[in-house]
Amino acid sequence: MNLTFKQPAKSADTNDLRPENSAGYLVRDTHLLFAKALRDRLQSHQITPGQWYFLRALWDEEGLSQRELSRRVGTTEPTTVSALRLLARNGMIERVRNPKDRRTINIFLTDKARDMRSELMPVAIEVNKVATAGLSDDEFDQFRALLQKVRENLSMEDAD
Amino acid sequence: MNLTFKQPAKSADTNDLRPENSAGYLVRDTHLLFAKALRDRLQSHQITPGQWYFLRALWDEEGLSQRELSRRVGTTEPTTVSALRLLARNGMIERVRNPKDRRTINIFLTDKARDMRSELMPVAIEVNKVATAGLSDDEFDQFRALLQKVRENLSMEDAD
Repeated sequence: MNLTFKQPAKSADTNDLRPENSAGYLVRDTHLLFAKALRDRLQSHQITPGQWYFLRALWDEEGLSQRELSRRVGTTEPTTVSALRLLARNGMIERVRNPKDRRTINIFLTDKARDMRSELMPVAIEVNKVATAGLSDDEFDQFRALLQKVRENLSMEDAD
Repeated sequence: MNLTFKQPAKSADTNDLRPENSAGYLVRDTHLLFAKALRDRLQSHQITPGQWYFLRALWDEEGLSQRELSRRVGTTEPTTVSALRLLARNGMIERVRNPKDRRTINIFLTDKARDMRSELMPVAIEVNKVATAGLSDDEFDQFRALLQKVRENLSMEDAD
């Protein structure tokens, strides 16, 4: 998280896996900083990043099953279950057993959680603005394109 | 994790926070794919990504305190304590109470864990190679530079 960079390596030698040369390390560290910036801002709304990712998925589409939510948020099912339990306790979601398939539980937002969207999305927008400050439009596009390329590489692997 | 991309947005409008436009979202998703690729490969070595990050920090420098390890790995202290407990149970680390400051516990690797470095580092190198396949040297350098810029932006914020 607070990695001190020495002299930046000049060339992209993927065998030299000092942290500052490791794409995986840099991506993880960047993710942790994003999560911290988000956590700091969500605190006053009594929302943790753990809950945030589920809210965000449900704002996009309600009625998802627990399994589908796990897939979209990228969490294991036990993590999903405990995040959803917390959201239910805070009156943010309702878990509804699917009448056609009793093993499936579908997740719906409460009005309270639906209303929070307009309050909370600006928080995420602000974090992204802070993070990408000073990047030109071209650089931002390139950043997304490179992340997208890396995601594709790792996803192909995933399908093996 | 398995985000389906619609039409990619053309311009870098940071107010348009569809997932494919959110740097934070893309970084998190990329991180999750890295962690999965690592987890898949570490499984046969009986190491979880949660343990991996601590091993990696300790391969760089032994004798760190629990607090310092938490800072370097970017985890909360409870997470650190439970990861270290598991590593101790597997005979990978020794926790030594600091003779000069009884409240501090310093963490050292066992010979077994030290020896695993040469076995496990190639795993991380391979994951990075898979992830950055098809990127030119320039693109790889730019990827690191952009991540670095975003990290700096978020770290400055951190210091507020």
